[in-house]
This record gives sequence, structure tokens and C-alpha cells, in this order.
Amino acid sequence: MNVKDIGEFGLIELIAQWTEKEDEVPNQQADDLELTIGDDAAVWWAGNVLQVWTTDTMVADVHFFASASDWSDVGWKIIAVNLSDIAAMGGTPTYALVTLGLPEHVSVNDIQRLYAGMTALSNEEGIRIVGGDLVKSPVFFVTVSLMGIAQGLVLKRSAAKTGDLIVTSGFPGLSAAGLRILSEGRQALDGHEVLLTSAHLRPRARTKLGRHLLASGVQATIDTSDGLIADLRKLCFASGVAATIDWSLMPVHPALEAIFPDDLAKLILDGGEEYELIFTATPPVVHRLLSESSETMNVIGQIIGGNPGAVTLVNSSVGEIDLTHTGWDHFKS
Amino acid sequence: MNVKDIGEFGLIELIAQWTEKEDEVPNQQADDLELTIGDDAAVWWAGNVLQVWTTDTMVADVHFFASASDWSDVGWKIIAVNLSDIAAMGGTPTYALVTLGLPEHVSVNDIQRLYAGMTALSNEEGIRIVGGDLVKSPVFFVTVSLMGIAQGLVLKRSAAKTGDLIVTSGFPGLSAAGLRILSEGRQALDGHEVLLTSAHLRPRARTKLGRHLLASGVQATIDTSDGLIADLRKLCFASGVAATIDWSLMPVHPALEAIFPDDLAKLILDGGEEYELIFTATPPVVHRLLSESSETMNVIGQIIGGNPGAVTLVNSSVGEIDLTHTGWDHFKS
Repeated sequence: MNVKDIGEFGLIELIAQWTEKEDEVPNQQADDLELTIGDDAAVWWAGNVLQVWTTDTMVADVHFFASASDWSDVGWKIIAVNLSDIAAMGGTPTYALVTLGLPEHVSVNDIQRLYAGMTALSNEEGIRIVGGDLVKSPVFFVTVSLMGIAQGLVLKRSAAKTGDLIVTSGFPGLSAAGLRILSEGRQALDGHEVLLTSAHLRPRARTKLGRHLLASGVQATIDTSDGLIADLRKLCFASGVAATIDWSLMPVHPALEAIFPDDLAKLILDGGEEYELIFTATPPVVHRLLSESSETMNVIGQIIGGNPGAVTLVNSSVGEIDLTHTGWDHFKS
Repeated sequence: MNVKDIGEFGLIELIAQWTEKEDEVPNQQADDLELTIGDDAAVWWAGNVLQVWTTDTMVADVHFFASASDWSDVGWKIIAVNLSDIAAMGGTPTYALVTLGLPEHVSVNDIQRLYAGMTALSNEEGIRIVGGDLVKSPVFFVTVSLMGIAQGLVLKRSAAKTGDLIVTSGFPGLSAAGLRILSEGRQALDGHEVLLTSAHLRPRARTKLGRHLLASGVQATIDTSDGLIADLRKLCFASGVAATIDWSLMPVHPALEAIFPDDLAKLILDGGEEYELIFTATPPVVHRLLSESSETMNVIGQIIGGNPGAVTLVNSSVGEIDLTHTGWDHFKS
């Protein structure tokens, strides 16, 4: 049986089993650990501060086009991807370690641009790069491990409850649309196209929003790095609930409507590589949040009882669709 | 200019410059950070506990022979390599994140064996694996990021002082000798050969010794992952001192003498991929440690004034040698 046969999420489930502690006594007390494999980040107590910890990797020609990329975009994005995991916990990022897998032909100038992208976003977000590892590798890759802190509470995937409204920040699908445009390799792009490609190359994570949600009493949150539906399914599965998504409520960005009018559902629902937050909360909490906040946030559905992880789309052009078993997966062919 | 032109350590110096913070205010106070790029691990305060943080990576056919390796050995070793950085700080390991770069053809059984090796050593050392990342990659790699804690003080590279004695734990050169034997691809190995190949495949990090050194008043320590002389040079450079190493004091393991009698100096001085600790301390501290401890530890030289990082070997078969500019480097061709 190969990795591609069971897919990324099948493998994660196995790893969770293989790494489960039984009788052993770890060096930190079991009750120091708040969250382990299965959420956006690991969380534990160090004294009276919650430590939030994540890692993400980008591999050349898997996660970006090596020959067509500005290295500073790659640097920016690997920080953004990690930041998004901290954002989904409501945390504040602090320190980063950076590992580079380096073919010998990589130029020092490219590495400098990579770090320029990483430090640009790190400086904005108050992150300090404090170490890492450099290894020889036939293929370029960059792994960032990012620490953060949270004050006494974090957002979780597992806290959604029946009756909660489902809200997404921003406009889903922009990054996937940008990737399509980049794949065409064209030189001249119009305003809409530049907006979409920027969403793919220089995403922003919702760190401020994550902290605001936590302070506002929201409990269940996930980022949309694997796509709106795929990540909503994970949130529902972790919470033991189901969801309906109402297509007629979905925010559709004008750039998407202008350039990909026939592919809106696929781009918006399955997009991926975007770093918005989906959260669920009771109607009063949601209504207060939406009325007070200047950020783009839209109610797109509701948490219901049902098979954990089941997601149904209603009011689409083809009526009601069961989206429980479709979606974006890194490994399945 | 390519990476191979400036070497790993040239690149680390540049990265330290590129990531230096200037006017920006990081999210944690500057005085929370105890150690950054340039030591075995990053160290900062979380409340009244020091957090010790490192990361190391192994790439298939760069750091191990993919086709000839038992995957559980690879899992064991990536934990040992990370542990050694925590050991060099005198810390206690706590939590790990594991990132895998996975070609599609990797079997689930291989990944299970990899985790078996990782959890075997993690359980012994009280480490809990709490998350990570899985990415598609044309080449297999594994990155571990390891957290640890230390109580109020850590060992550093930069604390060696003129007049200190230099001590190494264990027997240097075993892992490099084991790698030579493995490179020959033979099936039947004798007792000495098994000892040497095990030193390469299933190394142990000196975590207990590191904590004992810290408790005993030792201040300057480094692990020998890049080789005895290369790492001693780094310790001396960080401390602004020089060193003499006395070949007549060097511990030589019988297995090395039996199998590689003509290559002892190269294997012992330049070996690499071993996880002993070198430390320096005043003669009274060293003598007390050596008389009280059951671990193999040998005085091999002395810290002297001189050009920072200069290392001289005395009493070798060819007399006195300046080792300041030779040694193992991942990238230099």
C-alpha cells in the first residue's frame, strides 16, 4: 500500500495512532498539552502562557513553479502559510526556525531574496527568525516552524455546535483562480488578474481576525488552506457535527465573476492555498461580530446534527449536493 | 555566486545578517530571547522556564542510503540528531513536530517503520510527537523540530575561557568509520564492524550528560555532529578563544584501531555525524566531573588565547598541525 492509496488524511490518522502515548511518562505532564495531532497547531502550557506551535513546508515544483517564481514571493508565502495556523488558533506569532533543502546550483542571491520575503512578512507580524538548518538536497524545499503564544485560551476545530452559524472571512477561491492564471504563463495581466495572482503569491494570514474572534467568544475555527469545503469537513468531523452551506449566501468576488464565470463553484468550494478563516458561533455572537467589524465576513451556512463531517450544499445551480466525499487532497490521484 | 562557493557556514553568517532585527518590535520582548542563530538551539524565556528549540533534517541519499536503510534506523536517527542539540544546551526534550516530504511510491509500511524508530527513541527520552506536516516531494526527506526546557540556565558555545580544559565524551570517529563500512555494502559484519555501523545508524545523544554538565557548573558545550575539530573550532570562534588538542590524550576505540589503523586521525578529527559533547571548564571542575562520573570522558586539550577559532593539534605522528582551516563542511566541494 502506497501513500497515494490512502491519501494525506488517511496517513495523518495512522500517524496519530502510531504516535499515541500509552504507559510512558513524557517529560512534561500530560495536562500541559492542550492540543496535539489533528488541529492547526499543537498547543501546550509553559507556565501560565499557552504555547502554539506549527510547521509548514513548500517544495519546488510541487508548491510553486521554481523557474517562474520570484524567490521573495516564496519566502513571503511560507511565512504566511505558517502564520495562518497560528491565526486559526487565535494566537500571536513569536519565533521561527527556517530549514532550507538546497541544491548546489541555488544562487546566494536567490536565498537572499527568499529571506527578504520571509523577513518582510515576519517584521510586519513581529516574528523573529532565531535559527534553523541548512541541508544539501536534490530538490529545493523550505520548512518553517513557527511558535506563537495565546493568553489562556485558543480557538479549536472541535468546538462547533448544532445551531451555530458558519462564517467565512474574505472571498474564497481567489488563490486557486490566481494559480490558474499563473499556470498559463502569460506576461501581461489586467487588474483583476493581478489581484488574483497576488492572492496566490502573496497571501495574508488572518492573525488579527483570529485574535479578535477569540476575544469575541468564538470557539470553533479552522483556516481554509486545503479549500473551503475540505476544511469545513475537517472542522465538522472534529466537532462531531454536520453542516449545510447555502450557495446563495456565498461571497463571490467580482474578479472571479469576470474571469471564471463558469467555474465559480469549483474555485470557491475546492480552492485551497488560501488563508481565510472559517468559524462557527451562536447567532447572537455572529451578529454582533458582523455588525461591529470592518473585515469582510459572510454567513455561508449552519451547523446541524448528522454524520460527523457531512457537508451538504443547498441552493446551488444544480440544487442540493452532498459534498461529504469530494474535495482537494494532496495525494489522492 | 552559488551556495557551494560560500559553504554552509558562510551562508549561516549571511542569514544571521539578513534576519537581524533592527527597529522592529517583535511580539516577545527582546530580553525574552537568550540565544539565536549561531548556537545549537534557540533559547527564550516563557514565564520562568527556558524554552530550547531546534530543528534538523535528513534527505534520502544525502544523509542516508535510501535503498539500503531500515526505515526505523532513519526514524531513530532524526530524533537523535535533534536530541543532540538539546543535549548540548543541557536541556530536557519535550515535544516534537515531524514533517515528511513524500514521493508517491513510498509505502505506508515504510512510514510506519520510520515512526516506529522515532517513537522508540522518543519514548525513551520522554518526547511526545504532537504534529507536523506531510507534503508531496520528488525526494524523501524528514524534518523534526524539537522543543525542550531548561531550568534557568543553558550551556552555550560562547562561554569557553583561556585556561579551560577541553573534554570530549565517548570515542570520536565511530560513526564515520561505520559509514565507511556501510558504503562497502557487505552483508556479513564482525563484532567490531557491527559496533561501528550501529554508532552510525542508531546514535545516542548525550542528554543526561548535558544536564549533568549544566548542574556541575560547566558553561561551554557543543555537540560533535559536524566532527570533533569542526565543532571545536565553532565553540572557540563563538568564545573568542583558540585551542590546542593533544593527540596523545585522544581516546581511541579498539574497534577503530583494529579496522582502520591507518586512518585514525582523519576518522577521529573530521568524523562527523556523531553526537558526543565537547565541553570546556576550569581544571578543578573538570577533575571533579571526571572523578565522579561513570561516563567515558577524556581531557583532550586546552583553551588558549589566540585568533578566535584557531585550533592546533600537537603530538601527532607528523608533529604540530594547524587545523584552523580544514574540516568537514556539507557544501564545500
